[in-house]
Amino acid sequence: MDTPHDTPPASTPRGGCVLTINGGSSSIKFALFGPAAGGDRLFAGAVERVGTPEASLRAAGLGDREDRKPIAATDPARAADELIDWLEERGDLAGVAAVGHRVVHGGPDHAEPRVIDAALLADLRRLVPLDPDHLPAELALKDALTRRRPTLPQVACFDTAFHHALPPVARVLPIPRRYGIRRYGFHGLSYAYLVEELRRVAGPTAPDGRLILAHLGSGASLAAVRGGACVDTTMRFTPAGGLVMGTRTGDLDPGVLIHLTRTENLTADQLDAVVNRESGLRGISETSSDMRDLLAREATDSRAADAVALFCYQAKKFIGAMAAALGGVDTLVFAGGVGENSPEVRSRICDGLAFLGVDLGLASNAANAAVISSGITGVTVRVIRTDEEVLIARTTACVLGLPFQQKDATP
Amino acid sequence: MDTPHDTPPASTPRGGCVLTINGGSSSIKFALFGPAAGGDRLFAGAVERVGTPEASLRAAGLGDREDRKPIAATDPARAADELIDWLEERGDLAGVAAVGHRVVHGGPDHAEPRVIDAALLADLRRLVPLDPDHLPAELALKDALTRRRPTLPQVACFDTAFHHALPPVARVLPIPRRYGIRRYGFHGLSYAYLVEELRRVAGPTAPDGRLILAHLGSGASLAAVRGGACVDTTMRFTPAGGLVMGTRTGDLDPGVLIHLTRTENLTADQLDAVVNRESGLRGISETSSDMRDLLAREATDSRAADAVALFCYQAKKFIGAMAAALGGVDTLVFAGGVGENSPEVRSRICDGLAFLGVDLGLASNAANAAVISSGITGVTVRVIRTDEEVLIARTTACVLGLPFQQKDATP
Repeated sequence: MDTPHDTPPASTPRGGCVLTINGGSSSIKFALFGPAAGGDRLFAGAVERVGTPEASLRAAGLGDREDRKPIAATDPARAADELIDWLEERGDLAGVAAVGHRVVHGGPDHAEPRVIDAALLADLRRLVPLDPDHLPAELALKDALTRRRPTLPQVACFDTAFHHALPPVARVLPIPRRYGIRRYGFHGLSYAYLVEELRRVAGPTAPDGRLILAHLGSGASLAAVRGGACVDTTMRFTPAGGLVMGTRTGDLDPGVLIHLTRTENLTADQLDAVVNRESGLRGISETSSDMRDLLAREATDSRAADAVALFCYQAKKFIGAMAAALGGVDTLVFAGGVGENSPEVRSRICDGLAFLGVDLGLASNAANAAVISSGITGVTVRVIRTDEEVLIARTTACVLGLPFQQKDATP
Repeated sequence: MDTPHDTPPASTPRGGCVLTINGGSSSIKFALFGPAAGGDRLFAGAVERVGTPEASLRAAGLGDREDRKPIAATDPARAADELIDWLEERGDLAGVAAVGHRVVHGGPDHAEPRVIDAALLADLRRLVPLDPDHLPAELALKDALTRRRPTLPQVACFDTAFHHALPPVARVLPIPRRYGIRRYGFHGLSYAYLVEELRRVAGPTAPDGRLILAHLGSGASLAAVRGGACVDTTMRFTPAGGLVMGTRTGDLDPGVLIHLTRTENLTADQLDAVVNRESGLRGISETSSDMRDLLAREATDSRAADAVALFCYQAKKFIGAMAAALGGVDTLVFAGGVGENSPEVRSRICDGLAFLGVDLGLASNAANAAVISSGITGVTVRVIRTDEEVLIARTTACVLGLPFQQKDATP
């Protein structure tokens, strides 16, 4: 097993850095970005398997080999303490001028990124029922950092912000109005990054066309963007909706849940576990939620083949639905772990979409190239490596007036 | 109030008729079709508001004024008894050679229409948990008819049959395989009728193209048909899924139901009531589930406008999704109460679908004409008056070898 560096690498600067924290219930991704002059990502890593005896911290700096060590992280607060200890041992924490957090849910009132203060914390605690899977862990991370570094400014960047101005027709849900439940949408930090990046690589007016963004990872969603603004997205009130995912169902006939409640006597917590952790690709394949595993297995295991087929088929149908919302499509962007790295999945999703003007180039798609459309038909299909951490770092610096400038997001 | 005729109208034949029964939990639609030589619908009607003190029976024959009378129908069995009494009083029951029933759910094993015998009844009773809203009432109707007319053959026509051979990718649901829950799809009798009718009006090969059928009524769904076979449909395991409906949600982020279970402490039966009877257009508008009411009110009530907008927007997106499933579309058919009679709804659904080749003719759409596409672009858009009763009558006669022939379904 590797042990972490006892001394900080020479590249570590001594001030003006932004630490990004992207925390969930079972993992915390983090990255350290250098100050004004550079804005480089100095290192990135994750605390993984939080809440299990196998919890570990791994990180890699620029050019470094990966460090990995077991840590005692029985809950998110303990994980945060371990992360802070590790940053202190490396001498990195002294250089951190601000922390930027991904906050999964901003509720109806919070969209603009802002410094986390007592009022916002109180609001976020009230929002916990909207996202009991993520928000408590995120709040625990903030609390731990505040306890250890009371004067360090922390900024909340909301994953729902990108969708905050959805048109009313895309916001309303078909349930009684009295419940006050609406569509929020998620993966917003990723989508905001993709739009910025599209502007950078394809010209400042590129996001003004009819744009479909497909963020396909273990969580997966699509967004429809027109004139730079989000007009629809597949996730709804929670991140369980929309497209089928690694372990989540996506949208469901509500009759299925009522049937399970009746016939299996499932409680709300048990339903939550089924819907968010036992379903999707894992539930169909009965083996794995990881698309790479499933692709490797599909020739010999029809359950794996079913899972891959459903994911690609649903993504294709959602592209059709988003095209209908936009009145057609000019640019289709694939991002996320699966979207960026699986030519096979992209190819199956796009198969049969010639009627939309989608046609992939065989070689460019196989190479995960920046542009993978054939050029014969009208729709430009792109692969963009999404980077929520860069977006969080930029946003945090901007909110605090730090002279932070990311040089080049995709080297 | 009108009172029913004391004597049967002269047109009523004395043998070889088929009585169709399309029964739900709160209403029973029925129709009597003449024997071989004609196959005409002699009269049709409904027992309405079953289970309430306002229960009534109404019927109209060919050229007759409508009869309506209050009846004591506290449950579906009592309603069936009242219907049989009424048919006997008219002298019609003596001429009935067979009864054809719409059966909403055939489960995994039943698709082909068949004579209802003890084995099938036992199977259907086992299927009640799959559709507790419809099957018990349907079984009560069959039992009442059997009690009153033990030798009268009764035939089950399954609403799920049209979708029975869905491709595996359209059948699998994204939940753990161990639950054994799959997509069934509904409105199958309507879709089967529409395909037959399309063949009649547009030529025998018309259904072989890429066909999207939109059955838009108080229940609403879409189906994608290729080569005459159904390849996908929007409803799933129960009739609550897919497109938003009069009082049903359609597909939902499962997180919404988990949230309601937690925060409102709803039981399965309460969830069922919310999802199936208080949601959809009624839940959004807070006034009505009827599209005509909502269209009349939308200029002055934003809640009604929201409901209309969501219905049209979701239908548009599902057309996009079905087009993606089919690789494009050649023919789009509107049917059902809303689909057949609301130029405004059809126009809003098709607005922005020019990228699919959909373009409505202003005058033909306003006139609910048989063909409402402009003829400028590629997709033929049609309005077809669906008729589940004719399909049930034809099917029932066919199963029993009765010499029944519907002359002309759309005069």
